[in-house]
Order: sequence, then structure tokens, then C-alpha cells
Amino acid sequence: MGGGRGGAALITLTTDFGLADPWVGIMKGVIATRAPGTPVVDVSHGIPPQDVVAGALVLRHALPWFPRRSIHVAVVDPGVGSERRALCVEIDTALLVGPDNGLLSLVAPPATVRRIVELTEERFFLTPRSRTFHGRDVFAPVAAALATGTDPRALGPERDDLVRLALPEPVRQGTRVLAQVIYVDRFGNLVTNVVGDTFSQDRVSITIAGARIRGVAASYAAVARGTLLAVVNSWNLLEIAVRDGSAQEHLSAGTGAALTLDEA
Amino acid sequence: MGGGRGGAALITLTTDFGLADPWVGIMKGVIATRAPGTPVVDVSHGIPPQDVVAGALVLRHALPWFPRRSIHVAVVDPGVGSERRALCVEIDTALLVGPDNGLLSLVAPPATVRRIVELTEERFFLTPRSRTFHGRDVFAPVAAALATGTDPRALGPERDDLVRLALPEPVRQGTRVLAQVIYVDRFGNLVTNVVGDTFSQDRVSITIAGARIRGVAASYAAVARGTLLAVVNSWNLLEIAVRDGSAQEHLSAGTGAALTLDEA
Amino acid sequence: MGGGRGGAALITLTTDFGLADPWVGIMKGVIATRAPGTPVVDVSHGIPPQDVVAGALVLRHALPWFPRRSIHVAVVDPGVGSERRALCVEIDTALLVGPDNGLLSLVAPPATVRRIVELTEERFFLTPRSRTFHGRDVFAPVAAALATGTDPRALGPERDDLVRLALPEPVRQGTRVLAQVIYVDRFGNLVTNVVGDTFSQDRVSITIAGARIRGVAASYAAVARGTLLAVVNSWNLLEIAVRDGSAQEHLSAGTGAALTLDEA
Repeated sequence: MGGGRGGAALITLTTDFGLADPWVGIMKGVIATRAPGTPVVDVSHGIPPQDVVAGALVLRHALPWFPRRSIHVAVVDPGVGSERRALCVEIDTALLVGPDNGLLSLVAPPATVRRIVELTEERFFLTPRSRTFHGRDVFAPVAAALATGTDPRALGPERDDLVRLALPEPVRQGTRVLAQVIYVDRFGNLVTNVVGDTFSQDRVSITIAGARIRGVAASYAAVARGTLLAVVNSWNLLEIAVRDGSAQEHLSAGTGAALTLDEA
Repeated sequence: MGGGRGGAALITLTTDFGLADPWVGIMKGVIATRAPGTPVVDVSHGIPPQDVVAGALVLRHALPWFPRRSIHVAVVDPGVGSERRALCVEIDTALLVGPDNGLLSLVAPPATVRRIVELTEERFFLTPRSRTFHGRDVFAPVAAALATGTDPRALGPERDDLVRLALPEPVRQGTRVLAQVIYVDRFGNLVTNVVGDTFSQDRVSITIAGARIRGVAASYAAVARGTLLAVVNSWNLLEIAVRDGSAQEHLSAGTGAALTLDEA
Repeated sequence: MGGGRGGAALITLTTDFGLADPWVGIMKGVIATRAPGTPVVDVSHGIPPQDVVAGALVLRHALPWFPRRSIHVAVVDPGVGSERRALCVEIDTALLVGPDNGLLSLVAPPATVRRIVELTEERFFLTPRSRTFHGRDVFAPVAAALATGTDPRALGPERDDLVRLALPEPVRQGTRVLAQVIYVDRFGNLVTNVVGDTFSQDRVSITIAGARIRGVAASYAAVARGTLLAVVNSWNLLEIAVRDGSAQEHLSAGTGAALTLDEA
């Protein structure tokens, strides 16, 4: 991948910048200036402000659907301007660019990592460099450099590892599993940390926020409108939903809420 | 159109997915993987969740402004995972892809329909296919197949008709017309189901939510700031607005609100 | 620039249309129809409705990051349908297209203006032209014409000047500067009208909404979480922020709020 061709490159952006301000547009302006014609795809700019875990989850579940060799830029960066490192991480299937605060770690398990480079070569950055917006001054121009064929090794020295997030994992206690809501989407669906094929979908009984759900539905439409249900979602994670409604509102529950699975 | 050329293709997306989550980005990843270089344009991802009628209205009023032969993907799909059919509809001017729940029907009046194909050929879908996200697993890959020249007839068997929405129509009673608000935009403008050239713009008196408006203004700027007015909007529909303000807030009225037009 | 080449063109869009409605998508449809293949980049569509000053500020701070010769379309247009003029302004580095209400003026200081053309040649517009949506009917097709090589002089007669915004400027009184918040971003950062190199960053004491801040921090991360700070931001303007929080909420202050800088 080191000698990636510009013609094949695609850059994705994942940030907590929102779309009301021009931050994302400015990053695209930098990319259009330095790597004209490179397609840029927005993964999401609606990561809650400074929520590194949500950014990492979104990136983990989006990355597999993009072409191999894509360049994924992620910026959720409360430490901008501090001593936190900036990285380019080369994995089996893609190049990752972003701050070294855990944001990139869920898409870069150790077995997939080919190379971790700290971004220190300032000739690839914008000058002068601000202390508050490295999306514009560091990450966008580095992505543009990669898109036009720059070898990641030119960007700085190699490092041994990156900051890794410790996501909450479900805890099994006999026939009971203690789990958590880790993400809430726009529909108010509560996404949990329980992988879809790690429990019996027929015989499970789920308790969350005082409500009980028996079994996993085949789809949202398998139950009546307004009914609470559990489903294995498109990320292959157990999800609590309300048909044509919001489980978040129905249960007054959000990220961090506990649930238990009991297998009969 | 069956043998559409990849080079000419453009894909549009209309969904209720919002932009905070990565759903739209993931669909674009699938398209970029399977039909590299195909331009993708967002029509709207802000359709209210599960609001098939709003999605159909948006698609109706956006489609005429896109190039002929564009591929329009629409996903407002509360029935995902159920037995509802998935369709590709070929009309005079475009190809439509989406669930068969009425969403496509306003842009496919019978006289324009050339072919309705049920999407059953699973070789065009992603594998495995989730039960909750056919935007990713069915509609995006089918659009990519069409963009790269797949004949719609290869996608499945032809059908006779599609599910059609029954939109509320204005009712005329002598010199009075009973009508409804069918859409509210970001400015709080209340869009009605009254077509602009079906009444006398000079002599009409409009009553809505207890307020009365005499005549139709030439533009928002034709009245003083903060004033309630009626105007024929860019969809050629009667619209109730407040200059530099929100008619929705001013009248506490939204979709479904009744209005009456009296011609003097 | 008059004979700009289509191949080099890039169009940006800055509006108050939001992304929930299809207005932006429709403008892109018009551009895709009339200037196929021209890249379109969104600067922002989240300008507060009818807020010409916010639109002008966003455009000013985004424009320098785009390629030279880009075509920047801006539509915050409460006077649409009135006698307000529509303009194409050619500056040193770019072409600007939008209503003549001040929106374009911050990126077109007199010394940079090469030519101001009033858009009167209706053959470049859509027909019929609505009274409410010139983004679709006037500005998008004019941008498409420019992108495909139309000389700005073909669009209408030249004019001497454009409507100019009078932005509040900081007032110096001895060692005190009286200033204002002019923009609030998604993070709740309060952007002021004080340029970063016009005061002593070490010795300044800032008072805003009853709070006092001593000195300017090197970055958000230079202070503890939840702490109020001042920083020179990526627009080279003094900004009041809260680390990992919102200064807007912390101070209950927004656009227009007064601040004083005292130099020791």
C-alpha cells in the first residue's frame, strides 16, 4: 500500500464537527487543493462532541463497506494542540489518519496492523499550523499526500503501538449475560455490546430499564407498531428498538444503560 | 434505458437515516466499492423517521431537476425485513430503486411507468443480508449494478403495479376549497396541497389556524417583516409563510393542518 | 479567469437551507444537469435562517482553503423575489455568485475586486423562474454556466460596487478593547471580532458575561476539563471556550455578547 496510486484513492471523513459550521467544508477545500479530483465520502460528522468512543464505533462499523485501500480520516480530537501524537496507521485493508487517542484503535486490532507512523514531518502540514484545528492543518493535507501517492513512511518515524480503547465487554455469569448500551442511533435504537451469534436468540429473555423482552425478533416489522423488541442489527449487534418508535424515549435509556440476558 | 451506460450514471439518495449515524456513508461505501467513480448526490436524509409520505413528496419535487437517466434510490422503510417487496421502477426519465410501500409512487404515475421489476435476484445483493438495513444490503448494491450497466430486467420478475399513496387532495365546494398542509420545511413554511394555478391568486382569501390572509404575495419580500403571507412556492404549491420568520411557530400549525380558500 | 476551463472548475455552496429539505439536493441536480462532472463541495448549509452576517463570516473563513478559480455560490436570501440584485463578483482568487445583500462582501474587499456583474441575462436562468427559490433558478444555473466556461461578462452589465456589510469592529480605549462575539460554533465556542495578533496574549485580561479570563491558552488542552479559556482559533480570531464543554452554555452568552480586553 505504501506506493498507493492516486487514481485508486478515496478519502472518508469521520468527525464530531457537525455540518452547521464550515469545518468539514474547509477540510474538503484543503483536499481539493492538494489532491484534486480525489473523491471524499462523509461517514459521519455527527459524532457527539469529544466522544472518542462513539467515533471509534462508527468507524469500526463503516470501514468494512468501503473499497480496500481507502484513506479514512477521523477527527474527534479534544487534545488538539497538546502533546498527543498524530498518526497514520496502515492496516491490511486501509490507511487510517487521525489523533492517537483511541479513535483509530477499534479498526486496527494488532493482528491487522502493518505499520504505525507518527505524523511529524511538517512539510506535509499546512503552514502556519493552528493549535485548534488539525483536521484542516494536519489530517486533511496528510490524507491528500497519501491520496497522491506519498509513502506513509515519509510522514514520520514508525511507532510500536497506538492508544487503545478499553470498550466495555459483556460479562457472562452462568446463563446470564450482563451487557451495556454502547450507541444510540437517530431512530432511538439502543445498540448493545452483545454480538449477535453469542447467545440463543430463541430462548433469551432480556431485561432493560425495568422492561422485559422475550426472544429476538426477525425484524422491526415482525412486531406490532409501538412494541418494544430486540433484534440483531446490521452491525451484528443486539439492539433494543420500538417498531416505528424510539426505544430511547420509550425506556428513557441511552448509552451506558445496563441490560441482562437470561437464557432459559 | 435498460442498457444504461456507466459513464452517464448519477445516483441520488433520499432517506430518513439522518446524517448523525453512518448509514448514509455506508451506502456510499457500497456504491464506491461496486460502481467506482459514480457520482452520488444527496437529495435529503432528513425525512422524518418512517414518514413515507414526506419521502415521496420530497422525491417528487426533486426528481425533475436531475439529469435524465439518473438512478434515484429512496429508503424510508419501516417494513424492512418483512414481506414488503423491493422494486426497481423504470419511468420515462429515470430509474427508481426502493421499497414497495408507496415511497416511489408519486414519481411514477401510471402513464410514465415503463417497467416495474421486483428485486429478487440475490446475486445483486450483499451477502449475508441483514434484516434491518436493506439500504446497505439491497438498494445500494442494486443501484451500483444499474450504474454499471445492468439491465433492470436482470434484477427479478416484472410486476404489474406498485403500492400507491393516496395523498389528500383539495376538495372544492362551490367557491370554497378545503385543503391541507402536507409538508413543513426548515424555515417553518407550510406547504399545502393546493396547486398554484388552480385558484385566483388575486381574489382568494385564505383561513388557517384562525388567521386570515387576503391574496397571494409575489414573494416573501413583498410584505413587511414578521407578516403572515401566502405565496406560490418553487414546487408550484400554495405555501403559508412568515417573512423572515416561521409560519409553523406563528400559527402553531404543521403537517395535516386544515386551510380553506374562499374566492370572492 | 473570464475564460475559466470547465475541467478546472469546482463549485462550493454556502446556504441557510439546512439539509432536512431537498433544496440543496435540487441545486446539485441543476448543476449536474448543466455542468456534468463538476465537483460540488458543501461549505455549510447550517447558516441560521436569513442570517446574512453569519453566512458572510463562514464564507470569508472558508474561501482561502479552496483551490484558486473555484466558483463559490452563497444563498442567504431573505429578499428573494424582490428588486435586490443578483451578482457574479470576480475577485483575485475566485468567482462569487449570490444575492447582493452583503453576503459576498466580506470575501470581496475593494482591492481584490476585478469585476462586478449583475445577473440579468435570463437565458442563463431556469424557465420559468420561481419567486422563492433563486438558488435553483438563478444561482445554480449561473454557476454551472461559469463552470463550463461562460465569461462572467456575458451574464449581464458591470456594476461599480456591491452592498457591503458593516461588521462590528473592536473599539480601543487606551489599554482597553471593547469587542463582541460574532459567531458561535457547534461546540459552543464563542468567536469574537478580535484578530489574534492585535493584542498581547500574555498580559491580557478578558471579561465576558461576568467571568474573567487571564491570558490566552496555547490550546484547549492546556487547561483542565470544564475550565473557561481564551484561545486564538483557526480563523486567527480570539475565541472563548470551555475545555470539553460549551462556553455558550457556561456563560449563557451568544452572538452579540460584549467582552472587554484589558492589557496589564
